[in-house]
Amino acid sequence: MSDSEIQVAISSDQIRASVADSRAVAASLFEQVVVKLEGKEGIFRDTYGPGESHGHRVVAEHARQAGLEIATDAAANTYMTLPGRDRSARRVIIGSHLDSVPNGGNFDGAAGVVAGLTSLAALKKLGVTPPCDITVMGVRAEESVWFQVSYIGSRSALGVLPPEALDSPRIDTGRRLSDHIADCGGDPERLRKGEAALDRMQLRAFVELHIEQAPTLVERGQPIAIGTGIPGNFRYPNARVHGRYGHVGTPRRYRQDAAMAASDLAMFLDRLWAAHEDRGIPMAVTFGRFHTDAAAHGLTTVPGEFEFSLDVRAYDAEILGRLEDEMLGAIARIERGRNVRFSLGQRASAPVGPMDADIIDDFNRGAAALAIPARTLHSPASHDAAAFAAAGVPVGMIFVRNRNGSHNPAEAMELDDFMEGTALITWWLANCLN
Amino acid sequence: MSDSEIQVAISSDQIRASVADSRAVAASLFEQVVVKLEGKEGIFRDTYGPGESHGHRVVAEHARQAGLEIATDAAANTYMTLPGRDRSARRVIIGSHLDSVPNGGNFDGAAGVVAGLTSLAALKKLGVTPPCDITVMGVRAEESVWFQVSYIGSRSALGVLPPEALDSPRIDTGRRLSDHIADCGGDPERLRKGEAALDRMQLRAFVELHIEQAPTLVERGQPIAIGTGIPGNFRYPNARVHGRYGHVGTPRRYRQDAAMAASDLAMFLDRLWAAHEDRGIPMAVTFGRFHTDAAAHGLTTVPGEFEFSLDVRAYDAEILGRLEDEMLGAIARIERGRNVRFSLGQRASAPVGPMDADIIDDFNRGAAALAIPARTLHSPASHDAAAFAAAGVPVGMIFVRNRNGSHNPAEAMELDDFMEGTALITWWLANCLN
Repeated sequence: MSDSEIQVAISSDQIRASVADSRAVAASLFEQVVVKLEGKEGIFRDTYGPGESHGHRVVAEHARQAGLEIATDAAANTYMTLPGRDRSARRVIIGSHLDSVPNGGNFDGAAGVVAGLTSLAALKKLGVTPPCDITVMGVRAEESVWFQVSYIGSRSALGVLPPEALDSPRIDTGRRLSDHIADCGGDPERLRKGEAALDRMQLRAFVELHIEQAPTLVERGQPIAIGTGIPGNFRYPNARVHGRYGHVGTPRRYRQDAAMAASDLAMFLDRLWAAHEDRGIPMAVTFGRFHTDAAAHGLTTVPGEFEFSLDVRAYDAEILGRLEDEMLGAIARIERGRNVRFSLGQRASAPVGPMDADIIDDFNRGAAALAIPARTLHSPASHDAAAFAAAGVPVGMIFVRNRNGSHNPAEAMELDDFMEGTALITWWLANCLN
Repeated sequence: MSDSEIQVAISSDQIRASVADSRAVAASLFEQVVVKLEGKEGIFRDTYGPGESHGHRVVAEHARQAGLEIATDAAANTYMTLPGRDRSARRVIIGSHLDSVPNGGNFDGAAGVVAGLTSLAALKKLGVTPPCDITVMGVRAEESVWFQVSYIGSRSALGVLPPEALDSPRIDTGRRLSDHIADCGGDPERLRKGEAALDRMQLRAFVELHIEQAPTLVERGQPIAIGTGIPGNFRYPNARVHGRYGHVGTPRRYRQDAAMAASDLAMFLDRLWAAHEDRGIPMAVTFGRFHTDAAAHGLTTVPGEFEFSLDVRAYDAEILGRLEDEMLGAIARIERGRNVRFSLGQRASAPVGPMDADIIDDFNRGAAALAIPARTLHSPASHDAAAFAAAGVPVGMIFVRNRNGSHNPAEAMELDDFMEGTALITWWLANCLN
């Protein structure tokens, strides 16, 4: 779309003023969603547990007072809707997740929901009734560390969660996902049948604001960035290397050292990563858990067993497939060379999530109109938006500057920066839905 | 010495017959020194704990019944002496340690003490009174896994244990070595002053029989081997890598991945090892503990901290020094390249222990006389004999075939093979001390 085709009814100054007036809504919601545990650092909005449910109660109560329509689904996602002029028109969803990792930060996830509610508050102050419904979605269960399953809430809403995922145990409680969902008021049996709360054909767009998980925007000196793509990944959450314990003096030819074998694989993937980096191809390799067995290891014992988790991500499905093939080849070589056996265990994966080109264009024009210095950015992380992209829904993302990474208590999002992202969403809702 | 210079008073057949008659002594002692813990696999003769002390009681009680002189020292080592014709002559010690690693095997250490007592039983049956005293020494505290200090018992006996070692905590109890020694009837204050129970100038030789810690003799089809050298080592029992925890999507340039840094070091040393192996230079590298922090690691978190233990061993002091220099250079490069910091923590080391050339010659002649198919072998492991070698005492070692390595419950020493080693020691005592 060019400027001439769009009916610009509301000035950028009006939008800035109305968003600024709504700043207290954002500040208050961020304060209310905090969940801390006695004696522990950081935030604990545990997936399908008391922490996450607290977040959903807070935003639903705000939505009730703001006069939005409230609904939930079989996965206990929360939908908060500002009705549009044509209620049968395809609707827009602004959303993100309300759970956190253990010892997490307050903004990873929650910022996207607060941004949606703050934008709706600003629209209301502007007296705008949008052409279609706008729904703020509080998504459940994005942090896959808890159940080691990706995008549980958003895939459930879209009716594409694999039924076997419902049997995954939560890493701390050991209870199944289905039981946790039922605890939170959901209906796992409807999810097992693949019932969808959202018809993807009835969705005009899914927009997600999220803190950045690296300090790129701090380096750039920019408050926000416009997302261009979400990486897909393959994962082995519970892989093992089986070797043989031995005396510290065991000669090389008799060793079956599981730790050396795992290090060999780590360095193989690290070299692959460095080579892609040199060619300008973004990807990432993370061995989050990487450890000998505390019950058996020791200074004078060659490690006979080793455990690790692996996450490999890239922005191109073909590259991702090739990386996994190369990894499997390396494992076969390491097994032969070091006389060990890998058992990779359960495999998980998430598809690559491309952003919608029109929404990227709209966001770029909006940033220019609002005089926000924003450029585009690859997302290094996974987001619910990827699940919507995989379902064919046009998706847009906005990243907010953050100095200290996420998934840790030191997340450092400034409210000023967040409000710039919220202004851009509000501008887009006010100007681009006609 | 050539054959013609030696007074061969006793035939090999007589020695074989007498050693065979003493087989029951060995079998009974091996049975009695077993210490098992309820619900745990393997042997638990814990260093300066109830398990090790049980071993000392068993051999002392046998020695008392066999009419040997019994003594202990400030480190609670046990000395069991067959008096010689000239009590002022330099004496021979046959010894090894009586402790085991946790979940260990029954033969690593104990076999050397049982071999000494069985040889003395055989000498007695032969009616031999040796020219000098022969002392069987039950050594304390060789398994450095408990206090992370090398050769505590043998260095204490020689008056060369560094006083600060007495403050080392036992890894499981957390109590200091000095307290554990006092519990076992020793006198840590005398050790702190460096009092020596043994005057190295009064020692003619230290001989140690030990199970092999690799299956080389299984491959060779030989029951025993004659040791040619004990490796020295340097050790970092409690090293750490300090990086920074981050989100799984953190781009490469922002990562401070402690696990990748540790793997980088592991592969550096592994390549060095392979290169030495190619040049026929024996050494070994063991990262026994190698792990992320179980309280903080997870599938979606870049590891910010990593812990490891390291043992590097070689047979040549100069090579060992060069390996440590190269390692420190690699660490500096990895710190710069991966934006992490290593803190190596406490350093320990053990000197290289060369074997005495005359004793090797004697053992070779003895094996020929007894028709034992034995060749020489580098010891891959550390042994108390190395502490005696470092003190300038002539040292000899005999290794016994063992299919399954040591430091594990599956040690598989055959009593037949052990008796061949005991026959060689008896032959040497009967023929080579004049």
